[in-house]
Amino acid sequence: MSKQELPVIGQDATVEGCCPGLLTAPLDQGQAEVLAKVFKALGDPVRLRLLSMIASRAGGEVCVCDLTPAFDLSQPTISHHLKLLREAGLIASERRGTWVYYRLLPEMTDRLAGILTRPAGIGATAGTPA
Amino acid sequence: MSKQELPVIGQDATVEGCCPGLLTAPLDQGQAEVLAKVFKALGDPVRLRLLSMIASRAGGEVCVCDLTPAFDLSQPTISHHLKLLREAGLIASERRGTWVYYRLLPEMTDRLAGILTRPAGIGATAGTPA
Repeated sequence: MSKQELPVIGQDATVEGCCPGLLTAPLDQGQAEVLAKVFKALGDPVRLRLLSMIASRAGGEVCVCDLTPAFDLSQPTISHHLKLLREAGLIASERRGTWVYYRLLPEMTDRLAGILTRPAGIGATAGTPA
Repeated sequence: MSKQELPVIGQDATVEGCCPGLLTAPLDQGQAEVLAKVFKALGDPVRLRLLSMIASRAGGEVCVCDLTPAFDLSQPTISHHLKLLREAGLIASERRGTWVYYRLLPEMTDRLAGILTRPAGIGATAGTPA
């Protein structure tokens, strides 16, 4: 398989080392900017559908030629959405012959899941209806 | 504490019952639209900082008067960002006297964390570098 690139986000910060938890301490501006880019990439229905199609693929890899027919959108539009997911560090791509193949980078979704997971006890004070 | 409202998102769909997992099966268009609204609300550095300030508050509740000074933004701008977080079902608000108080709705962040959590085994095929 192709070499795995570290998902670099923004110019001088990555989600690695960023934001031990969104729910445990106030983020600073730099952390918030890094993280917002990833959530922004997820904030679109087409990109979410693409990500779910890629992530749930049994073989772990999807040809762009299998993604495009599911949408009533042009190939360049689909490619643009895939580029944004790639730049956010959510997927990786590899060209082989005519086609580009995409796969999930689960390290990033793991990290987001961790960031959104509340430490034990937070619900008792912050969210449970009285 | 005030009555807890169900976080209704969009017109006819909510995140409840939606999307058992983003990574386990392709989302349909309706599921993707519901979920994209929540991620879009998180896709902004100011909103992420606000959410982290609210979520990490020891008492579980923050006065808007304590949020605004942390930003170089007007009160109406902060209120607009808070409104988007509220409409996404991420926070709830309650007016008491002069001020509005905000608290996390951890059910929504729990749900997002769950949606982003991969089932055991997905990493073995989809994401681990060869």
